[in-house]
Amino acid sequence: MNQTKSIAIQGIKGSFHHAVAEQYFGTASTLEECLSFDVLVEHLLLKNVDVAVMAIENSIAGSIIPNYALIDANNLQIVGEHYLDIQHNLMALPGQNISDITEVHSHPMALLQCKSFFKNHPHIKLVEAKDTAEVAKEISNGNTKGIAAIASKTAAQLFNLNILAESIQTIKHNETRFVIVKRQTEYVTKNINKASLKFELDHKRGSLATILNVLSDCKLNLTKIQSLPKIETPWKYAFFIDVTFNEVSDYEKAKSVVQLMAQNFKVLGAYKNGKL
Amino acid sequence: MNQTKSIAIQGIKGSFHHAVAEQYFGTASTLEECLSFDVLVEHLLLKNVDVAVMAIENSIAGSIIPNYALIDANNLQIVGEHYLDIQHNLMALPGQNISDITEVHSHPMALLQCKSFFKNHPHIKLVEAKDTAEVAKEISNGNTKGIAAIASKTAAQLFNLNILAESIQTIKHNETRFVIVKRQTEYVTKNINKASLKFELDHKRGSLATILNVLSDCKLNLTKIQSLPKIETPWKYAFFIDVTFNEVSDYEKAKSVVQLMAQNFKVLGAYKNGKL
Repeated sequence: MNQTKSIAIQGIKGSFHHAVAEQYFGTASTLEECLSFDVLVEHLLLKNVDVAVMAIENSIAGSIIPNYALIDANNLQIVGEHYLDIQHNLMALPGQNISDITEVHSHPMALLQCKSFFKNHPHIKLVEAKDTAEVAKEISNGNTKGIAAIASKTAAQLFNLNILAESIQTIKHNETRFVIVKRQTEYVTKNINKASLKFELDHKRGSLATILNVLSDCKLNLTKIQSLPKIETPWKYAFFIDVTFNEVSDYEKAKSVVQLMAQNFKVLGAYKNGKL
Repeated sequence: MNQTKSIAIQGIKGSFHHAVAEQYFGTASTLEECLSFDVLVEHLLLKNVDVAVMAIENSIAGSIIPNYALIDANNLQIVGEHYLDIQHNLMALPGQNISDITEVHSHPMALLQCKSFFKNHPHIKLVEAKDTAEVAKEISNGNTKGIAAIASKTAAQLFNLNILAESIQTIKHNETRFVIVKRQTEYVTKNINKASLKFELDHKRGSLATILNVLSDCKLNLTKIQSLPKIETPWKYAFFIDVTFNEVSDYEKAKSVVQLMAQNFKVLGAYKNGKL
């Protein structure tokens, strides 16, 4: 467990971000509930909080690109990562059956992940909402019948809702990767064996292969790669990669070579691999 | 202009998909308006339409991953691509000023792209909706005051709305890539100089670099790369790449080598490059 003062999370207590904050930092911390990732970053930059927890990648839907852009544009540093197996549960007020439900409100990502389940319940209308736990809270506070939420078991307990169906996501193993971010000035390197890097390349044939050869020669293992449009210059691509390594000296060597070969090289963070 | 019978588009007439269908196929075709990408694919598989138009990548937010999954899972073939410069306009009923507007309803992607504009108009609440043009239509049909839509100029004309602010997206050059997809059995190769490929690799160090070296040796140019979680086996990654080439023989050669070196190699489509 890492000690900390205050943590910004996306969503409210009972959300998946809350679960990550507890698992990574323990239960003693102060939480700042943020209604969007923009607000979360603002809290961090204004020094209202020490760290923030941000979902960055999902094993089904891929990267959450706008969050990469937020980290990059605001020069935040990734200082850790945490993986959470996300199980979606359908919940409503006690006494309600699934046949009583006419609408389910949830985050677009949660609705997407549970699409197959609702194909078998065509009488339920899918409505997009900001946050999974927020909907559970509103149903509870408003004593709202006919509407269900998709959220965690923690949310069901916290807001006294009844679970109508467990693990309704199509793909049962549904892992989401969260990153722990800080302001850049507070960045400290210790016990690192993974890094997130960004660089840009000319659109010459073989330029990416050359960089990957360097990483491989330096014994770095690529765990993720993504070409991304360069903001303000469409269809010029930047690359976001994650690498793991055993020796920090290997990483330092690769870093100094890639820095010379690629343009606008940037370390988004170096941290401890969250996977065992 | 390519001749065709009937085209499925995401959204309604006045949507950006509609604009792409017109620019790619001309105005003589029959359109099938689909309220989701799932419905669009269903129409294609049920042979209600000959082709479908699908947004696949945006120069700001990156790839639309679920659409890659739809193409892959349903064995559709990409037979063409088209780039559209998307300009978002704020529109409402004639006579309304921006100070009269309390809510703007639009697609989450459109809201995201116009975030900076609305930071300067904090009295306007952002509400997520299914489709940009659909909101414009509803405001018009319902004679709804106080609510604005974000949509194309075509939508404003079609639904008699007044443009309150032009090109309100943060990044002025905002290009979206659309693909034209068909059922796999109808796939024909001619005049091709671009291809979308998918393959999987062992997580051995340097395995991706080796593949990219082959592509480079075969004179193929990589225009896009994305590692993606493999469905049902989280954190095993598949790679989606786009390549361009001058000679089909170079492409055929690269294909036969990569097929031997990588696992589950698949051609998602070979087509004519939509970029000049």
